[in-house]
Amino acid sequence: MSDDDCRLCQLIDGRLASTSPYEDELVFTLMDYQPINPGHVLVVPRVHVALLDDLDEEVGAAMFRVGHRMSRALRRSGLCCEGVNLFLADGEAAFQEVPHVHLHVFPRFAGDSFRIDADWRIRPAAQLEEAARAVQAGLGTA
Amino acid sequence: MSDDDCRLCQLIDGRLASTSPYEDELVFTLMDYQPINPGHVLVVPRVHVALLDDLDEEVGAAMFRVGHRMSRALRRSGLCCEGVNLFLADGEAAFQEVPHVHLHVFPRFAGDSFRIDADWRIRPAAQLEEAARAVQAGLGTA
Repeated sequence: MSDDDCRLCQLIDGRLASTSPYEDELVFTLMDYQPINPGHVLVVPRVHVALLDDLDEEVGAAMFRVGHRMSRALRRSGLCCEGVNLFLADGEAAFQEVPHVHLHVFPRFAGDSFRIDADWRIRPAAQLEEAARAVQAGLGTA
Repeated sequence: MSDDDCRLCQLIDGRLASTSPYEDELVFTLMDYQPINPGHVLVVPRVHVALLDDLDEEVGAAMFRVGHRMSRALRRSGLCCEGVNLFLADGEAAFQEVPHVHLHVFPRFAGDSFRIDADWRIRPAAQLEEAARAVQAGLGTA
């Protein structure tokens, strides 16, 4: 269930110190020590699982439910919060840095430092249809 | 339940054309017409709600559950997918462009165009503790 070498497992079980605004049977939360803005929370399943692919769907639902509650809490926290982002990086190619599933929840405000960029040109319908068929094939075997 | 002027509502009810790899009673999905990479899916609650703050928790759980399934499907789709991001923008300050809750699920691969940037300096424990107290205060009133 726990991985001795995993930094998040060490934070969950207290071998490393953290500041946790909330925890329950399935989910642990902690303040990110590199917060994008004050109030940046990580929502972490207690079970050591590296990728969403291997995460039980009910545990995933618990994690996202807490993420949803955190978004509400941030808007009522008194912290500077004009909006909220939820961000999950699944796999190194997706910028996952610690191999234990975790959901970032962070407050946003106009003029803050967070930026995203990508090539988001409009694509022809035929390309979208081809991708949809591939996703459906993946759903059938997931 | 639906908003006549909302672009996502129009896509859900078919007034605007879209390509949907999956839908159920609570949730509609469609291929983003500005995909970061081929396979970029939007997961959308059918009910017209602008912000997470006003979204029923069970509907939120359904949306995230489908997002989790989509992440699995993308890894089995045959599309180029070495990782997956889930991204939700809640509020204009958080880069929300259409005022109807939606979760982005997109495949990632090394060398693709998606980038994030922020001021993620390490912050002192006292700042994290102060933020945690604010989040807890927000949880108490959420």
